[in-house]
Amino acid sequence: MKVSKRLLQVPASPIRKLVPYAQQAKKQGVKIYHLNIGDPDIKTPEVMLEVLRNWQQNPISYTQSQGEPEFLEAVETYYHRLGHDFVDKANILITNGSSEGIAMTMFAIANAGDEIITFDPFYANYNSFAAINEITITPVLTSAQNGFHLPDKKTIEKKITKKTRAIIYCNPNNPTGTVYRKEEIEMLIELVKKYRLFLIADEAYREFTYDGKKQVSLLTYIKKVPQQGILIDCVSKRYSLCGARLGMLISFNRKLMEGVNRIAQGRLSAGLISQKMAAQLTKVSKGYFKQVYKEYEKRRNILYDNLRKIPGVFVPKPEGAFYAVAHLPLKNAEEFCRWLLTDFRLDNETVMLAPAAGFYATPGLGKNEVRIAYVLKIEDLKKSLEILKEALKVYKKNIK
Amino acid sequence: MKVSKRLLQVPASPIRKLVPYAQQAKKQGVKIYHLNIGDPDIKTPEVMLEVLRNWQQNPISYTQSQGEPEFLEAVETYYHRLGHDFVDKANILITNGSSEGIAMTMFAIANAGDEIITFDPFYANYNSFAAINEITITPVLTSAQNGFHLPDKKTIEKKITKKTRAIIYCNPNNPTGTVYRKEEIEMLIELVKKYRLFLIADEAYREFTYDGKKQVSLLTYIKKVPQQGILIDCVSKRYSLCGARLGMLISFNRKLMEGVNRIAQGRLSAGLISQKMAAQLTKVSKGYFKQVYKEYEKRRNILYDNLRKIPGVFVPKPEGAFYAVAHLPLKNAEEFCRWLLTDFRLDNETVMLAPAAGFYATPGLGKNEVRIAYVLKIEDLKKSLEILKEALKVYKKNIK
Repeated sequence: MKVSKRLLQVPASPIRKLVPYAQQAKKQGVKIYHLNIGDPDIKTPEVMLEVLRNWQQNPISYTQSQGEPEFLEAVETYYHRLGHDFVDKANILITNGSSEGIAMTMFAIANAGDEIITFDPFYANYNSFAAINEITITPVLTSAQNGFHLPDKKTIEKKITKKTRAIIYCNPNNPTGTVYRKEEIEMLIELVKKYRLFLIADEAYREFTYDGKKQVSLLTYIKKVPQQGILIDCVSKRYSLCGARLGMLISFNRKLMEGVNRIAQGRLSAGLISQKMAAQLTKVSKGYFKQVYKEYEKRRNILYDNLRKIPGVFVPKPEGAFYAVAHLPLKNAEEFCRWLLTDFRLDNETVMLAPAAGFYATPGLGKNEVRIAYVLKIEDLKKSLEILKEALKVYKKNIK
Repeated sequence: MKVSKRLLQVPASPIRKLVPYAQQAKKQGVKIYHLNIGDPDIKTPEVMLEVLRNWQQNPISYTQSQGEPEFLEAVETYYHRLGHDFVDKANILITNGSSEGIAMTMFAIANAGDEIITFDPFYANYNSFAAINEITITPVLTSAQNGFHLPDKKTIEKKITKKTRAIIYCNPNNPTGTVYRKEEIEMLIELVKKYRLFLIADEAYREFTYDGKKQVSLLTYIKKVPQQGILIDCVSKRYSLCGARLGMLISFNRKLMEGVNRIAQGRLSAGLISQKMAAQLTKVSKGYFKQVYKEYEKRRNILYDNLRKIPGVFVPKPEGAFYAVAHLPLKNAEEFCRWLLTDFRLDNETVMLAPAAGFYATPGLGKNEVRIAYVLKIEDLKKSLEILKEALKVYKKNIK
């Protein structure tokens, strides 16, 4: 019995497609350092885990479709503390991770066959969400040479067609680690005003910026485009809550909020326990974050310094998030990534990387690149980079 | 800025659309008995809550996209114990509630513009999932007079067109409480074989059957249609885990499983904590279930006996699940349901019901019906029915 044509269009995740090979290696007793996925090893704040340990509510009931009131309240407070005091609970929908928020948003702002512009390379799962919504992603190329910053206005304008409905960007960027400058955000605001497009900002990594850089949120400018701006956010990275699956969709467009809330009603609610846990976010100390960003900055430095030393590897210095896109001195990074899992071991250990081609919509690009997530503690990160260095040496000598 | 046309097609949930009125009433200090939603008050098994109380894992990481291995293992064991020992983990995908499983399935088996047949009235949220997948639900009418059992084969065949891709049914049925007979399932199997359709069985309420009736699972027949049968299941009702948002999609169609797993990769994973908790399901005692079904049978009896006594109310005796569709002696049940929340109080209490029109795809049907979920403890259920009786009296006298 044939499945639908559209199902066949859904791509495998470049972050997860090699998982079966990793499982095989693990069965053989091989230790794998996971640089393929942004699943931080930083501890979740204790004040959140306490919610689990003191759990009393029974039964485990549905929450409201829009979100558990206590969590909605906490999220509102979070934005107020950032200085965006105009954000009201009515502008917020709690989603199952930012994944659901992005998927819903694409459905809400574009019909099948429409186009959404983004900057190549981009978070690969946008491809999945576009596929399930039968939308085309139109890539505007950015380049490693200028740190993957945005191209000029004209270059973007050339890609806007009658079918273009939105621009989506991720800031700080996954996979490149780029933090967009104020001027870049302002250019996007001008563009969506001029062409009457939606502007979708994915700010999952808002707080993860280094070297004293500050992220400029869409919220700072959203009053200029209140009907067009849509913020996608999540608690996954900020509080090491990836497995809680909680995101936020924020918009001041009433029709849009009504619509996504109707979709949310259909799937009943997000998880109760996760929301009760994440509702403690207002109690997380500033000290927690300082420590977290310091730790990531250190990791970023180690990653950058060590990668640069590997012959033939090129990587721009990541300014934020916890990813980097690195050029490797070989032709097919996916084959190399698979080989790392199936064949290469150093002291019975290996590394898992995400082939970067899946992060590009432009065909042929990224084939000699990988995305590296620097989410492991320094000792493990150093070890991973040693393994990668050795693996490249062996691969170049014997395989390629 | 205009949202997409398709967003405007997503219906509000008839179960949840009156929530703002309920919130308003609650603010005024009014107690509301929730008969609108199948959110049981039965306790979640302690062995599951212990997982929360003893929580150690930190950070809260993503799980595998297909499902947390421990939970997948437990789910496999669950089906084996039911006698379906051919169900393997490879045939299972863990979803965010059965909601996500149904939405994914519709995408996977039908293209935009295709049709799926179901039996009117049906679980209203199928309309949401159909809308987000741009699929048409073709209703085949069932009637209260014969307990909402399936019509004969010819009646169903008449609705099958070139665009029909599947038949979806819920057994035991939400909203009618009907438990389909062996012969009815066999007829569906014959039909999907003859017309080469997918057959989607939603068995969230598998264990909830009364008067000694046994549910006949699609799994009993799935070997006859291994490429066509798709089982949708969840732990929400079985273990009072609605707020855990965990469902299962089960299929032996390899292409389909590959496809839905790719979709699952895009949204990364279901919740870690919920899955770890639900993985304890193999340890839940048989005693727990016996007590649960006895309790629901009692509630069913009270609901049925008391509803019948209200002048002008007609309700077939529910055979399973914990819902009933009741005809009320009025013209517009939605107005009545709203009025219950905005205007009517008995000792400062009222009831919330789900207007049944939203459970029908046939225009005009269900307008004088409500869906009642008998998920409250007997004392509260009795009280709710007294309120309903009194409310109907007042409404008929003063309003209608």
